[in-house]
Amino acid sequence: MARPLAQGISLGDLIDRFGGALQGGEPSRRVRRLAPLATAVEGDLSFLAAARMRPSAARSGASAVIVSSALADALPAHTARIVVDDPYAHFATVARWFAAQLEAPPAGVRIDPTAVVSGAATIAGDARVGPGCVIEEGAVVESGATIGAQCYLGQRVRIGAGTLLHPRVTVLEDCAIGARAIVHSGTVIGSDGFGFAREDGRWAKIPQLGAVVIGDDVEIGANCAIDRGALDDTVIGNGCKLDNLIQIAHNVRIGEHTALAGCVGVAGSAVIGSRCMIGGSAGILGHLEICDDVVISAMSLVASSIDKPGFYSGVFPLMTNLGWERAAATLRQLPALRNRIRALERAAGANRAQEQGADGQSVIEPEE
Amino acid sequence: MARPLAQGISLGDLIDRFGGALQGGEPSRRVRRLAPLATAVEGDLSFLAAARMRPSAARSGASAVIVSSALADALPAHTARIVVDDPYAHFATVARWFAAQLEAPPAGVRIDPTAVVSGAATIAGDARVGPGCVIEEGAVVESGATIGAQCYLGQRVRIGAGTLLHPRVTVLEDCAIGARAIVHSGTVIGSDGFGFAREDGRWAKIPQLGAVVIGDDVEIGANCAIDRGALDDTVIGNGCKLDNLIQIAHNVRIGEHTALAGCVGVAGSAVIGSRCMIGGSAGILGHLEICDDVVISAMSLVASSIDKPGFYSGVFPLMTNLGWERAAATLRQLPALRNRIRALERAAGANRAQEQGADGQSVIEPEE
Amino acid sequence: MARPLAQGISLGDLIDRFGGALQGGEPSRRVRRLAPLATAVEGDLSFLAAARMRPSAARSGASAVIVSSALADALPAHTARIVVDDPYAHFATVARWFAAQLEAPPAGVRIDPTAVVSGAATIAGDARVGPGCVIEEGAVVESGATIGAQCYLGQRVRIGAGTLLHPRVTVLEDCAIGARAIVHSGTVIGSDGFGFAREDGRWAKIPQLGAVVIGDDVEIGANCAIDRGALDDTVIGNGCKLDNLIQIAHNVRIGEHTALAGCVGVAGSAVIGSRCMIGGSAGILGHLEICDDVVISAMSLVASSIDKPGFYSGVFPLMTNLGWERAAATLRQLPALRNRIRALERAAGANRAQEQGADGQSVIEPEE
Repeated sequence: MARPLAQGISLGDLIDRFGGALQGGEPSRRVRRLAPLATAVEGDLSFLAAARMRPSAARSGASAVIVSSALADALPAHTARIVVDDPYAHFATVARWFAAQLEAPPAGVRIDPTAVVSGAATIAGDARVGPGCVIEEGAVVESGATIGAQCYLGQRVRIGAGTLLHPRVTVLEDCAIGARAIVHSGTVIGSDGFGFAREDGRWAKIPQLGAVVIGDDVEIGANCAIDRGALDDTVIGNGCKLDNLIQIAHNVRIGEHTALAGCVGVAGSAVIGSRCMIGGSAGILGHLEICDDVVISAMSLVASSIDKPGFYSGVFPLMTNLGWERAAATLRQLPALRNRIRALERAAGANRAQEQGADGQSVIEPEE
Repeated sequence: MARPLAQGISLGDLIDRFGGALQGGEPSRRVRRLAPLATAVEGDLSFLAAARMRPSAARSGASAVIVSSALADALPAHTARIVVDDPYAHFATVARWFAAQLEAPPAGVRIDPTAVVSGAATIAGDARVGPGCVIEEGAVVESGATIGAQCYLGQRVRIGAGTLLHPRVTVLEDCAIGARAIVHSGTVIGSDGFGFAREDGRWAKIPQLGAVVIGDDVEIGANCAIDRGALDDTVIGNGCKLDNLIQIAHNVRIGEHTALAGCVGVAGSAVIGSRCMIGGSAGILGHLEICDDVVISAMSLVASSIDKPGFYSGVFPLMTNLGWERAAATLRQLPALRNRIRALERAAGANRAQEQGADGQSVIEPEE
Repeated sequence: MARPLAQGISLGDLIDRFGGALQGGEPSRRVRRLAPLATAVEGDLSFLAAARMRPSAARSGASAVIVSSALADALPAHTARIVVDDPYAHFATVARWFAAQLEAPPAGVRIDPTAVVSGAATIAGDARVGPGCVIEEGAVVESGATIGAQCYLGQRVRIGAGTLLHPRVTVLEDCAIGARAIVHSGTVIGSDGFGFAREDGRWAKIPQLGAVVIGDDVEIGANCAIDRGALDDTVIGNGCKLDNLIQIAHNVRIGEHTALAGCVGVAGSAVIGSRCMIGGSAGILGHLEICDDVVISAMSLVASSIDKPGFYSGVFPLMTNLGWERAAATLRQLPALRNRIRALERAAGANRAQEQGADGQSVIEPEE
């Protein structure tokens, strides 16, 4: 559960700060914590943004709820309402304010004495470096950035202003992260791309001499791996959001404001446009291009370029295992079944040509 | 290979401790190491639990083998037998005893001097903290817990009694792990959930204010990522077992004694019941519910709720690439092929209605 | 982008070192950096290895290009050519030389004073240990090996001569890595295998007593997890290359020079041959065997043994979501559709037996 604010905030103060119209409660009523409708209790602030949540709303113990006028009647009589046009966006704004109040005040030490920071690194006066960090020569940490405990910044790494690295992030030599980015624990930025040439049945390593360049306002989840380019850089554009356990291979380029869900793998030199959404565990093969505004379903494989915005899928539907065994076995015979249909059609056509007019579509060959 | 015990143990002592009937060997015979039948040599103890292992058993060099009476004849004459009802369960018990003997005796230092432990953290008198750890204020490490080298425990983290964190585990603020749990290296618990609202074509971050609550007797593999809840908590119930590289998104709830194999991804707010088994690399979409006692095949995608216990699959069968190209091409035509079959049936029905009685099933429309 | 060499190298010197014939430029012309054709500028050396790159070549600003005689005409007049038989292999050799020049000269300190190294560990005189490392008793680091910052080496770990561990690699007790290997950041070697026995609805842990043995010249990417064996060892043969985020379960054995792309999961006791190539996000079930020289497509699941070299695939093709919905719905009916085709064939055969000679194949039952 979210932690409560020690003092809380009055509904009147909330409305002064963020807007909305108060109904069914006094401005002096205080809320201390954010909670979902179903588990909210006295002192909690919740939100109601979808009609399907009406049953939870009717039973909610929240002291106050952010709600649209259309759904305000769904709440119990004792609940105060903050009526707004877009309850979810309003709640998100309020939540960011709560989160800021809950953050620990900066500790006394700016660069923890247990951090190993090269004398040839540049740490901005108001940046923070946690315990156990290692920062190599030539690295630059810009104003207001926070380097969590046990992070590693290689030579000539650049961390932009206001960026937050959670504990145990690794950024290897020459890689750069823009401003106001967030990187979660365990993620590795700048590992070598997977580049080998086959020589006499063995794999000879191709040096990976490029870097990783990450834009502003990017968020990258936990335990991701983002490889450096072979010669050029791997590039992740402004505003992109990557979930956990994502693999980005060398020379990949991703546009702006594209979101990748967890466990996605993107192979080398793939180019992904802006404002795309890639579902969880999807795969994107290398050396192809996906245009802007493409949505890929979870667990689908993109094996060739996509040049039309749209929603694409390719995943075997779930069945009972018995049903699946039958479907899978028949799937292997699919080309043969198609030939048998053709043969039946030919045979039928031979002695029933007069019927084609009535059902012509049945003999149109579909495009392959 | 497993390491040998310096002293070993006599078969008589083994039977005194764990039961079983000795056949074909002296109680004074000693075994020093556990090994599989195929690679066991003089001094090794092995087990035979399945008839298909008879060939390995016949050639085994083990000094002694745990075996059922039904399979005892499969072993060479020189092999001592410990005859029990359930050889695999018996072997597991014996193996836990061997493992306990092999564990390094606790080193002299209880809290390594290189660990950075907040004065406002609470470490039980018999807990252990390895070198390079960082433990923040308010964290609690309960009796008998072991925090491996280079772990990070955030503010107000709670680690239950007897729990073992292997080196380099990250547990972020406010997350809690129960008693007797095991977490493997590289795993991150409490990274932010992937929560964003689209605002003017950009993604605005929704603060992730909940935590992760992990029950007793849970084991979590290496390099997993388990996100904190948005408002409520992400919950993993008692006795669950998670393999490596698993992604658990925010607000997921998993019941008790459920096992997830490696590389599984579970999306936000999914609810998984108790005693389920989720195959490797399977995906589970968000905001759905899987009831108790469900088994999902490897690499299958669960895209909607499952309310009946059972075994479910959905994966494209492997073929030669040529066969796959043909099947995949035809798969795109499947709806058209179905229409063509319908047309053929209609045409056949028009001039051969008398045959339907003999083969009525062919015109029953299958459920969609 | 790759960093430039401070001094650069003359084309004459390059040819003296690595061969090739100079055309269209003076031996004294210097190049300082490697760059792809499309982004190369004055002072850069590039390569042209495929006819499809002709357009990039024609516009390239590179000072010199490694090229075959067949493609030498594709370059602008001002570009110097180094003409060789195999431009890509030649470039790879040159790139390894550039990479060696770019590497930081070894810093002054051999074992960083912040590393926590057991007095009972053995570190070769010319090996290097980075800041924040923890190395336990009995560990051996052989000649010329480099242990990056914040690595963890457990008891009795062995790191072979010339092997490089990037920062934050974890190698747990008793595991061994051969000579000249490279392991990238975040990878965990020697986590427990996923071994449990079901006892009264709960999972009882089977101790994992084996280790991991990794051969010479192996490269392992970032954030992988390689489990120790249950009794025997998990084995990765000489020359294997593993990309990022790969899961290798207990007792897996992989031959020599096999390559696994990112996000692959291999389940317990699987045996993979030599010179195989496993595509990204593919899955390999446990207790099966894949022979030498097998290629598996990205995202395919290997569910049974493969005993013939070849190229295998099994992945649902990508479609528009609407097309996919139709194909997926029909897929569930596939066995029923097959029955309907059979019925049509039987019916057609009953009254059109005379046509079978002309189209006999339509009634041959394909193998299942």
